[in-house]
Amino acid sequence: MLLRLPGLIDPHVHLREPGSPHKEDFGSGTAAALAGGFTAVLAMPNTQPPLTDQASLALAQRAAQSKAYCDYALYLGAGVENVDSAIEQSHQVCGLKMYLDQTYGSLRLDSLNVLYDHVSKWPHTKPIAAHAEGISLAAILLLAGLHSKPLHICHVSRKDEIILIRAAKEKGYPVTCEVTPHHLFLSEEDIPHIGANRSEVRPRLATKKDQQALWDNLEFIDCFATDHAPHTLEEKDSDNPPPGFPGLETALGLLLTAVKEKRLSLEDLMARMVTHPRRIFHLPEQPETEVQVDTGASWEVRAANFHSRCGWTPFEGMKLRGKVRQVTLRGNVVYKDSEVRASAGYGMDLMFAN
Amino acid sequence: MLLRLPGLIDPHVHLREPGSPHKEDFGSGTAAALAGGFTAVLAMPNTQPPLTDQASLALAQRAAQSKAYCDYALYLGAGVENVDSAIEQSHQVCGLKMYLDQTYGSLRLDSLNVLYDHVSKWPHTKPIAAHAEGISLAAILLLAGLHSKPLHICHVSRKDEIILIRAAKEKGYPVTCEVTPHHLFLSEEDIPHIGANRSEVRPRLATKKDQQALWDNLEFIDCFATDHAPHTLEEKDSDNPPPGFPGLETALGLLLTAVKEKRLSLEDLMARMVTHPRRIFHLPEQPETEVQVDTGASWEVRAANFHSRCGWTPFEGMKLRGKVRQVTLRGNVVYKDSEVRASAGYGMDLMFAN
Repeated sequence: MLLRLPGLIDPHVHLREPGSPHKEDFGSGTAAALAGGFTAVLAMPNTQPPLTDQASLALAQRAAQSKAYCDYALYLGAGVENVDSAIEQSHQVCGLKMYLDQTYGSLRLDSLNVLYDHVSKWPHTKPIAAHAEGISLAAILLLAGLHSKPLHICHVSRKDEIILIRAAKEKGYPVTCEVTPHHLFLSEEDIPHIGANRSEVRPRLATKKDQQALWDNLEFIDCFATDHAPHTLEEKDSDNPPPGFPGLETALGLLLTAVKEKRLSLEDLMARMVTHPRRIFHLPEQPETEVQVDTGASWEVRAANFHSRCGWTPFEGMKLRGKVRQVTLRGNVVYKDSEVRASAGYGMDLMFAN
Repeated sequence: MLLRLPGLIDPHVHLREPGSPHKEDFGSGTAAALAGGFTAVLAMPNTQPPLTDQASLALAQRAAQSKAYCDYALYLGAGVENVDSAIEQSHQVCGLKMYLDQTYGSLRLDSLNVLYDHVSKWPHTKPIAAHAEGISLAAILLLAGLHSKPLHICHVSRKDEIILIRAAKEKGYPVTCEVTPHHLFLSEEDIPHIGANRSEVRPRLATKKDQQALWDNLEFIDCFATDHAPHTLEEKDSDNPPPGFPGLETALGLLLTAVKEKRLSLEDLMARMVTHPRRIFHLPEQPETEVQVDTGASWEVRAANFHSRCGWTPFEGMKLRGKVRQVTLRGNVVYKDSEVRASAGYGMDLMFAN
């Protein structure tokens, strides 16, 4: 059966540009997005250099403008040095990204003073997206609440965290959140067959109990986000494996398989992959845009067939239901029969769409 | 001039019993309290063993009952193991103490899950007192706010922390706080003359800017608390100096000197050393209780004259105004002319006063 969906939105991808085009760039990353049914991706700022000022942001903007096949927007990174200047870039980005816990890159913030000032000075008009686990999550919720700033919690992975977000939502805190397919479909029990090195990801794969708590609290999860974080196989299999999984080309298949298994409704999926991310990040509608999915097709995950440059996936060999056949973006067929049909640079920066 | 004050209350002392009577015990510690003008002290649970269950609490209760010269109450410690049982001891203690940051002893909590459960299960009737610096402070404020539990922040020492508490108070969060004399009167600039080892204290001595912020925000500081944390000179001068200062016998002199210098009013002092701690910790009035202070007397701090067992002070040699001449507790003169007149065990546990 052919299912016609609106273009999906992924609010959390790492396209590795500027700095690490051997892992991914705006071309390969947005090709992977189209292959996965996404017509818009929001790209994270923990690049090299990190996107914390006009000069670094311009590097990413130029790369994206010349290479992107699908639409996109960029996050600004919150650093120690741009507390006062971040607001100057706020109209060009989809949000301010804060790293409160250990991850890949150099943007980690651990001082109350800096967090407080970033939250108080950032405008109300764009969300603050936070990598905040455990106690850090409670802290950033307080700061967002005190300053009435919209807060989006990235890749929630543990029971205590979704319970806390649920409690904060019930008390009226201005918070939304996202969960990744890998935290919904993998747990620490999968580490042996994925391999310890390749399983490195932040937040880490959690327990079965944590995983179940995410499914049990789906009502409080606003978005699905891949946290597409490509590293090459060589890097993952090295002595110091960087954390991160690719995710753009498996997310829809995993979630449609869950729909097939009745763990999720198609409406649940659409809300979390289209309407909620569009509302939270104030993204414009993409006119004449459609994804055609063959819901009857089953396929086996093979990283060798990916458009992503990283060459591996933790879901290798998994059998999934639902295959993207064709993507139309703003009136043009941009992806068909496993091939990108758009020209490089067709993708628009959605923050400059008007 | 002879000033007649109500008995002072110190909401934060370490009397080292059970476990370390060579540093202090309920006898020497409450003698030091009377010498400092305090007729009630609230004793912290990071003893050996820590006070986290009925058996350990009973050890401290028995020691206090047989030795204390002034009135007192005990805190229960929040540990990983007593999340479900803490409530059973709540009627016997003045509050639940949580350690969210590094300090002396083994009670540190660093899991969101455990913090969340402690805050949600502890009754509304007694405060939760927290050692919570920086990001931990923001986290515990959120949890107390979500569960509407009264929260008392111990020994606030830095500008960003008092600013955050001020913002939370202005938003109606159920929070009170205390500041120590050593953070009001010492800063990191005093470390060279005190000596690096002896200056070890948690929270650390802060910057002059932090110190000034405490004075500037006196309005938002509910209590003065000594955080009397005696260690012997031998321990402090060892290769691994434990953190902590004694404080009971210098607090009033330091603060009355500030009154003399018009940095503080006597009303400010009384509110923070009598009425506020009594209200926050639901302490009964101590009838027929009075402290006589010679406000004209100036004296030089000499640890050799202290009743505390630790034998040193970071304020050694400082010239202060205001000397405690006599203390009357519940109708009896318990301290006069530098000597304790009460018999051991005269002090009452204020949680069993009715």
